[in-house]
Amino acid sequence: MNPSAPSQPPPPPASPSADVAGRPLLPMAGQAPPMRADAVRNRARLLEAAVRLVAEQGVEKLTMEAVACAASVGKGTVFRRFGDRTGLLQALLDHSEQAYQQAFLTGPPPLGPGAPAAERLAAFGVTTLRQMVAYLDLYLAGDPPAGRRLAMAPRQVRLTHITMLLREARAEGDVELLAETLMGYLEPALIHHLTRQRGMALERLEAGWRDLVARTVD
Amino acid sequence: MNPSAPSQPPPPPASPSADVAGRPLLPMAGQAPPMRADAVRNRARLLEAAVRLVAEQGVEKLTMEAVACAASVGKGTVFRRFGDRTGLLQALLDHSEQAYQQAFLTGPPPLGPGAPAAERLAAFGVTTLRQMVAYLDLYLAGDPPAGRRLAMAPRQVRLTHITMLLREARAEGDVELLAETLMGYLEPALIHHLTRQRGMALERLEAGWRDLVARTVD
Repeated sequence: MNPSAPSQPPPPPASPSADVAGRPLLPMAGQAPPMRADAVRNRARLLEAAVRLVAEQGVEKLTMEAVACAASVGKGTVFRRFGDRTGLLQALLDHSEQAYQQAFLTGPPPLGPGAPAAERLAAFGVTTLRQMVAYLDLYLAGDPPAGRRLAMAPRQVRLTHITMLLREARAEGDVELLAETLMGYLEPALIHHLTRQRGMALERLEAGWRDLVARTVD
Repeated sequence: MNPSAPSQPPPPPASPSADVAGRPLLPMAGQAPPMRADAVRNRARLLEAAVRLVAEQGVEKLTMEAVACAASVGKGTVFRRFGDRTGLLQALLDHSEQAYQQAFLTGPPPLGPGAPAAERLAAFGVTTLRQMVAYLDLYLAGDPPAGRRLAMAPRQVRLTHITMLLREARAEGDVELLAETLMGYLEPALIHHLTRQRGMALERLEAGWRDLVARTVD
């Protein structure tokens, strides 16, 4: 609702600074406040247990008790670490988003730097589709209202990445709008609709993405 | 959340049966229960006053009192007709959606039947962008949660229309996914983001749509 906003895409945040629900992300590795090594390991173990539980049963059934049980710790440990269930879900989102972002920003090619832009773009969509499907309930649970949905930091990181690759691949046309069109194909709500409500296989969505990239940059 | 749902796109409703928030639409003309002629005229007059007020001041400032005042009737008349403000907003959405749907389903070419499919598709997107921009606050106010957003009846009507035109234009590739990609360009949340948060002119979005159609069916 800011009519004086520039028509250029906003620059990506220097580091991912908010999760899909707009809450501050945990600091990236290297920026984190000092944490005792055993606390770091303990936290990672709880998150890994939570990731397994979500994969097995979906986010609806994820409770603090279930995480404590799966990680063989007391319930109080989970509450001390994450505060409450919302804090746990936020930490899970941060955890998966960070690994995913690092993979396409700085990881090995063809997803990361080093491959031709068109190949990186194809790999980016396929990886994003898989990330969304794996954590779909978490992404849907963090879905912001319509007026804020498209301005969220993680979406801006993805959009800026697509825009950069389109320019590098010398795509013709209105590159900003082409990037928005490609980005729309990767929205969690669409992936939810196509896979769960329309019964489409992930492989079909991946093939559709590769076709879209070929139409856009070839 | 229905894993047994077929992968074919659901057929369009025989008539638009729900508004963008999923509430039942008023019956289409011809199916309406008998209403006295003066009551019909009275209702239309109130809706036209409401449409003017939304265009002038936005949906946030639309009150029952303002509609009564603009239509020169007592406040009680507006409450009797629409129940409450939510009922008024729903009636407004129905009103504008019906006129817009009739235009692309049965209206004159190039939007309606009679023009080549590629021309109809270009006209459809331009008309949809204008409809969305004109009633953007109403569409955003009726935005359903992520899990139901893409299964809403008005979206299905648009998607089925795009799919039909793509088949008629003999578009190559996975036509269902191409239709979803085109549809994504016309989502209210994206139009809100591009026009209000990024300051893009409607004309630029229209040109982007025409380019997208050309890439898809030429």
